Amino acid sequence: MEKNIGIVQTEYLDVKEELILQSGKTLPEYTVAYETYGELSEAKDNAILVSHALTGDAHAAGKNAEADSKFGWWNEMIGPDKAFDTNKYFVISSNILGGCSGTTGPSSFKPNSNERYGLDFPVITIEDTIEVQKKLLDYLGVKKVIVAGGSMGGMQALEWSIKYPECVCACIVIASTSKLSAQSIAFNAVGRNAILSDPNFNNGNYYDSQKQPERGLAIARMVGHITYLCEDAMQNKFARRFQNKDKPDFDFNVDFQVESYLEHQGQVFVDRFDANSYLYITKAVDLYDAAQGVYSLDETFKKTKAKFLVMSFTTDWLFPTAQSKEIVNALIKAQKDVSFCEIESPCGHDAFLLEFETQTKIIKSFLGEHG
Amino acid sequence: MEKNIGIVQTEYLDVKEELILQSGKTLPEYTVAYETYGELSEAKDNAILVSHALTGDAHAAGKNAEADSKFGWWNEMIGPDKAFDTNKYFVISSNILGGCSGTTGPSSFKPNSNERYGLDFPVITIEDTIEVQKKLLDYLGVKKVIVAGGSMGGMQALEWSIKYPECVCACIVIASTSKLSAQSIAFNAVGRNAILSDPNFNNGNYYDSQKQPERGLAIARMVGHITYLCEDAMQNKFARRFQNKDKPDFDFNVDFQVESYLEHQGQVFVDRFDANSYLYITKAVDLYDAAQGVYSLDETFKKTKAKFLVMSFTTDWLFPTAQSKEIVNALIKAQKDVSFCEIESPCGHDAFLLEFETQTKIIKSFLGEHG
Repeated sequence: MEKNIGIVQTEYLDVKEELILQSGKTLPEYTVAYETYGELSEAKDNAILVSHALTGDAHAAGKNAEADSKFGWWNEMIGPDKAFDTNKYFVISSNILGGCSGTTGPSSFKPNSNERYGLDFPVITIEDTIEVQKKLLDYLGVKKVIVAGGSMGGMQALEWSIKYPECVCACIVIASTSKLSAQSIAFNAVGRNAILSDPNFNNGNYYDSQKQPERGLAIARMVGHITYLCEDAMQNKFARRFQNKDKPDFDFNVDFQVESYLEHQGQVFVDRFDANSYLYITKAVDLYDAAQGVYSLDETFKKTKAKFLVMSFTTDWLFPTAQSKEIVNALIKAQKDVSFCEIESPCGHDAFLLEFETQTKIIKSFLGEHG
Repeated sequence: MEKNIGIVQTEYLDVKEELILQSGKTLPEYTVAYETYGELSEAKDNAILVSHALTGDAHAAGKNAEADSKFGWWNEMIGPDKAFDTNKYFVISSNILGGCSGTTGPSSFKPNSNERYGLDFPVITIEDTIEVQKKLLDYLGVKKVIVAGGSMGGMQALEWSIKYPECVCACIVIASTSKLSAQSIAFNAVGRNAILSDPNFNNGNYYDSQKQPERGLAIARMVGHITYLCEDAMQNKFARRFQNKDKPDFDFNVDFQVESYLEHQGQVFVDRFDANSYLYITKAVDLYDAAQGVYSLDETFKKTKAKFLVMSFTTDWLFPTAQSKEIVNALIKAQKDVSFCEIESPCGHDAFLLEFETQTKIIKSFLGEHG
């Protein structure tokens, strides 16, 4: 019987220290929102850092309060006897730099000010977000870490293995890529355009306004959401069924269930996410290239010391299997220890948040070898 | 040596007659913009009606003026000795009802009024657009017709074969579908949302305003454009190359070539297309279902009397080959004469506007049988 983590509190680490960013700009200080599950061993070598996807947060497992209706975003993967077994491991999850769920981002107040950053927040990169996580791990006293994540979280895991090879003993990259394709950049660009074009965006200064760039953010989410599902799954779920009617209304309101579903996804999203954060994080993802656009991927991987597990899903067309294989082939060429599995799933890119059974089996087997 | 059609003029047929639409609403009168190429035979049986895609117009071949920099949208397919050989055939092309290039649509003035329709224009269907084309063919005296089109034009060709079986002797359906999938509806819904959310849209009453819903329409086009290309082609064309620089600017302006390209596509589009027309035509496309959501496709096809040619392209993910095969299988089940070819092409959905050589060979061979 699997058990869930009990009630966990999100904690906050205030770092009163300048962070020099890849752009050359700096953040004078910052806060990291994080949660931990399980206990750090005396040798401080049983840590797993899980990194969330584009719109995730630090709350990966358990509930923050008894009354919460939902568990954290990777609850099925983190807990006693689960893939990331909290009986054995000390699991750490933190909100990404630039986010809007506790870690410093564009919606944060500037230091000693009652003015929010907005677009004064510096553009960040995946590499920058690793520095912030490193600071957190140093604070927690972690010496060795297993890094894991899906989608953008997988990019962060990959970057950890490259940037801190001495620290990372195992790296789990799920439904991810070493760099976005032109098509993925294009989809992100459309989303950013929708936000930037929203008249309520007001150059990022909308926090004190009654009007928020809600439509722009909702449209960005709708585009994104289409890429997280796969065509067959959408077809099976919605086909061409009408929403609460048996024929069209011949107007421009919602006719089809799939329209209603997307509209709902957009609406729910604006209630929980910040438009500026969406700009910053998608930009970080677009800019990420594990090989820094200069080196070959296998050359880049030469310095890594981790064992790798790479997993993809058959119906993921955002970061398709071919992009995982590119990572795997480069690791092999760099003579690294790598396991790869393409998991059969109808769930598209979102499968890393849904296909728990297969992922758990594979991860347990992979981690077992590290005992 | 292939020759191009010379200078052609777009003509206009004014129909002073009520059109009863599928919705039950009516249009009191309407105009159809059209062009013709070649000569109608004495028996009036050598006509080919080509139908354009979502944002096309009546100008399919030749130039409207000597100074024009571009030929019509299917110029490579229409002309002496071309796929649609104007030495043999009388080719007709018309702008779709609801469009913005001469045929009555939301940007047209209401009869005897200096007020434009805007959203007072009734929602139209693919079936309605066929009625308008039928009126044009009747006016031109055409008795028998070969219908052909790509994408939405293919849907119109298909609908012609169903609605006017006695009239249609051959039907050529390219890169098309008998009904949109949930994913395709979703992409169209995002586009419409972008337009409807543009503050300059003003409930469709923007014609006399200095502010047009340009950003919304551009974003709709950007989303659409991604679906017209294929991932590999985008990757080959743009990869992750920066636009006029060798490193990112760390801001939210354009970094990558693919962003610049999409932005350009959006900008060019708003200069030539009407936002309301985009709403009406995408809605017509969404609502189209050859089997009317009630019948099976093969049952629907039983009444047809045409020979069919169905063509798809390997990298078209908007209307993938499987959707063409669905049409083909239903035609076979209905014991109809059907030829099918999946054409190898890297051009995605847009291939029907680009892969002329193979299409020409196949169409010539198909039409040859009709001598």
